[in-house]
Amino acid sequence: MTSDTPLWIYDTTLRDGSQREGLSLSLEDKLRIARQLDRLGVPFIEGGWPGANPKDVQFFWQLQEEPLTQAELVAFCSTRRPGMAATDDPMLQPILAAGTRWVTIFGKSWDLHVTEGLKTTLDENLAMIQDTIQYLRANGRRVIYDAEHWFDGYKQNPAYALETLRVAIAAGAEWLVFCDTNGGTLPHEIAQIVQEVIQVFDSSAEVEADGRRQTADGESAEKVEKAQLSTPQFPLLTPHSPRFGIHTHNDSDTAVANALAAVMQGVRMVQGTINGYGERCGNANLCSLIPNLQAKLGFSCIAADQLEQLTETSRFVSEVVNLAPDDHAPFVGLSAFAHKGGIHVSAVERNPLTYEHIRPEQIGNRRRIVISDQAGLSNILAKARSFGIELNKQDPTCREILQRLKALESEGYQFEAAEASFELLMREALGQRQNAFEVKGFQVHYSLLSETDRDRATSLATVKLAVDGKDILEAAEGNGPVSALDAALRKALISFYPEIGTFYLTDYKVRILDGTAGTSAKTRVLIESSNGHQRWTTVGVSGNILEASYLAVVEGLEYGLLLQTQAKAALAASATAK
Amino acid sequence: MTSDTPLWIYDTTLRDGSQREGLSLSLEDKLRIARQLDRLGVPFIEGGWPGANPKDVQFFWQLQEEPLTQAELVAFCSTRRPGMAATDDPMLQPILAAGTRWVTIFGKSWDLHVTEGLKTTLDENLAMIQDTIQYLRANGRRVIYDAEHWFDGYKQNPAYALETLRVAIAAGAEWLVFCDTNGGTLPHEIAQIVQEVIQVFDSSAEVEADGRRQTADGESAEKVEKAQLSTPQFPLLTPHSPRFGIHTHNDSDTAVANALAAVMQGVRMVQGTINGYGERCGNANLCSLIPNLQAKLGFSCIAADQLEQLTETSRFVSEVVNLAPDDHAPFVGLSAFAHKGGIHVSAVERNPLTYEHIRPEQIGNRRRIVISDQAGLSNILAKARSFGIELNKQDPTCREILQRLKALESEGYQFEAAEASFELLMREALGQRQNAFEVKGFQVHYSLLSETDRDRATSLATVKLAVDGKDILEAAEGNGPVSALDAALRKALISFYPEIGTFYLTDYKVRILDGTAGTSAKTRVLIESSNGHQRWTTVGVSGNILEASYLAVVEGLEYGLLLQTQAKAALAASATAK
Repeated sequence: MTSDTPLWIYDTTLRDGSQREGLSLSLEDKLRIARQLDRLGVPFIEGGWPGANPKDVQFFWQLQEEPLTQAELVAFCSTRRPGMAATDDPMLQPILAAGTRWVTIFGKSWDLHVTEGLKTTLDENLAMIQDTIQYLRANGRRVIYDAEHWFDGYKQNPAYALETLRVAIAAGAEWLVFCDTNGGTLPHEIAQIVQEVIQVFDSSAEVEADGRRQTADGESAEKVEKAQLSTPQFPLLTPHSPRFGIHTHNDSDTAVANALAAVMQGVRMVQGTINGYGERCGNANLCSLIPNLQAKLGFSCIAADQLEQLTETSRFVSEVVNLAPDDHAPFVGLSAFAHKGGIHVSAVERNPLTYEHIRPEQIGNRRRIVISDQAGLSNILAKARSFGIELNKQDPTCREILQRLKALESEGYQFEAAEASFELLMREALGQRQNAFEVKGFQVHYSLLSETDRDRATSLATVKLAVDGKDILEAAEGNGPVSALDAALRKALISFYPEIGTFYLTDYKVRILDGTAGTSAKTRVLIESSNGHQRWTTVGVSGNILEASYLAVVEGLEYGLLLQTQAKAALAASATAK
Repeated sequence: MTSDTPLWIYDTTLRDGSQREGLSLSLEDKLRIARQLDRLGVPFIEGGWPGANPKDVQFFWQLQEEPLTQAELVAFCSTRRPGMAATDDPMLQPILAAGTRWVTIFGKSWDLHVTEGLKTTLDENLAMIQDTIQYLRANGRRVIYDAEHWFDGYKQNPAYALETLRVAIAAGAEWLVFCDTNGGTLPHEIAQIVQEVIQVFDSSAEVEADGRRQTADGESAEKVEKAQLSTPQFPLLTPHSPRFGIHTHNDSDTAVANALAAVMQGVRMVQGTINGYGERCGNANLCSLIPNLQAKLGFSCIAADQLEQLTETSRFVSEVVNLAPDDHAPFVGLSAFAHKGGIHVSAVERNPLTYEHIRPEQIGNRRRIVISDQAGLSNILAKARSFGIELNKQDPTCREILQRLKALESEGYQFEAAEASFELLMREALGQRQNAFEVKGFQVHYSLLSETDRDRATSLATVKLAVDGKDILEAAEGNGPVSALDAALRKALISFYPEIGTFYLTDYKVRILDGTAGTSAKTRVLIESSNGHQRWTTVGVSGNILEASYLAVVEGLEYGLLLQTQAKAALAASATAK
């Protein structure tokens, strides 16, 4: 295959992805994700099932007002109900009202699901597929047909399963998508079944090459096609040359490999979700599939500069759906190119090829040298270098930092995600830590005086600080104890360091370190702060959640001040140079 | 293949798994995990690299004192250093001192790593492989040879890569393991390369079938073998019939599929880790591989009753390493057999085959009906049934519960992991909630008066309760505000409900719901409680972490009392029946 072979990515984060347990999307969330996917260059975005809930109806309306720039928005729906005409099924009206050019219809391939699930006959299921697709085609829609439970159905009753596809093609579906709905199929079975099926349709396509099928109301399929908008990147397909797609789930931990196996057999559409979100164990992860297909197998999915947005897209979506990103996710995870063993670190710095399967920059990720209790001196040196601190391996400070690091880690500290705290620790060992202020003590008070009067509950924090030998006592209220504490500290410091007015807390994470000792266990708090254009993370550990929070908040303020000092120094240096 | 074809599972959680960023294991952790793996029936357990750190040395000593019951413990080490005899390399002494029957030696297959990484010659690398294996064989050890960077090496320089394996076989290695160290290889490449390599050795094995190779010091390989213990489940292999293994990483999101692809080509050892822990994106996940190999492909890996311990093992290991379990993990995740769509739920209750790729009980997992904002009435009914509450679909209470549920979820509540809170909500709607006590208010005070006197910091909680119309005021101290609050509540209630003395908090999880608004965002707290033989989880949501904790703690106590009441009622009923 050449590097130009096109492969269509079909994103279903907004529909199948939202089936993930613990994930729920507001209308605004859905719109933000759709626009990000559009920027990423995904050609098909399945937006939802209009009519299933008011949110999905509104979503499609909003995108009629302000359409996406590149992607085709797709509405999703099942075949019509048994025993009624498609025109009479009220379910299909919101699909047309959604105003998309493309509609994905899912239907049953597995005889058991027809008789047990739908409680209808095998013939009626075929009629449902046919009528629904013909109805949509007659109304100017282009149709993708999702063959639900394809692999299980084909294994049980291949003749019937194939018949459902034949009906879908004859009715005018342009893409036929093999769905491994239960996620139980393994890659070698996917490869074998897809190969067999594509062979069946390749030969039947020849037989029908001159045929012209009719739509439900007698119009020729060709006429219907001309009636609709055709975009240059999606030339219309003739009804007798269907293309195939694949839709996999991760129940066997092989969703990505299953999709790849189908592509190797000639499938040209891959359905999946950002971060692999989806019901049960998730859908095939597009953040893994896109780089595998494009950077490794040479297919053309999205532009090279769009591929560089993949990591950002993954993190953006996890932010919007409010799920912690998987740091260990292939390609886009924070740890995907992290090196911690001492040997690895020196080797990877000499020649990245030796320990990296792909250039992280290609997908917008980056290499990281990790600080951990397995850290050797070479890691400490590499890390210091990344902070702009030149250390010498012979310098006893190096060994001191390593020992301090190990001592803190045994207390429960982890610096892997708290690089700002690690830099402060390093500067302290080197005698380079600024002591912008000293905290002498603090108190936090929370009072809920009546269960019926929760809105009047208050959190109050009092802090005692010293700056330049001068004591300051300040108090502030907040929505919670930590924001009260942060407010009191900033109130006390702002007259000395006005830049503190630009700092704010952007994230707050709490981890209980000993899961078996309940709330008296150690608590690790990570706090992310920002000054509007930089972000940094600090860590605090204590048996008490308030003290752990206090430690992280204080270091967060200190590190922000350090960044300001560095910025000023850099500015002064450049002014002098002029 | 028959259902009796044996396949050897090789666990490296304790060595390669511990390379995962954020994971560190104490000696006690390692011992607990090793014993659990032994119970699971994994035949090979790689314990670590004795000599790399004092912990690993001690680990092997401890297991010499109290050996595992079934599994072979394996020590891991690299080939000797360049330019010295194996007998002179101090690195190999702790390996012998570890006292295992089996040793895994890893060596370089990729010429680039020899010249760039080791900075030695290609010939010296071959000598290093040979000497190290011969030395261990001469000292009575059986050897597994891990061919590091096998696939990348073979692609670059197949002749040299094959030569490293020939040397390892001739020196007496019984297993040769193809390692995809960088994790960049895709399943079809794995299949092709493994097939080619096995063919090379199948034909060369015939040529050498009568040959007898010598160990370094002239002893026959056969004599060396007789000198060691042979266990019935691991018959000794002759040196000229090597067996092959596979070791994959998940950087391309295909680690499990890669291992399966190698097995389909004749490999009979699979290396991986529990929960897929490992450096960067992790190793091949044994919790997915074992059920795929055994329940789907018919290999014999572990006994059927051991397979039923797989889910428990996965969760045990995540507890010990103190990482939140992945709820969406294939096979063993909490959501792996969770059903939330209304259609799915009714269908799966009629015929599990329609929506489940494997029986969850087979791997010790279970089906779950999920409560969520997509919940329909049929989910509510199924859930109620699981709590022993019979609801009627026509009952308006059903719709009331659904509405209350949606309202709470829009406030940030989630009941998916807090079934106790959901049951209380349901009982409240049905008028079946016991009001064992009423909280009238509480205060929490934390004071750290001097930075140098942290040990004297105190958390104090005061609560005001009403039980049977009687007001109670109590105060208690704790390590943190939540434990102080819990202590005060229990102190206030224990004279009314003595069983509260057996309750304790077992886990405490905090999630900030809006990651962009810092500490003033909403906080969701999950609290797990226990009475010694049952566990339950409750949830609280508030803008204030203390209030959210308070809500969850109070419901935790209330639910514990409900369980006691139910247990007493059941006991009384059975007494009456007698």
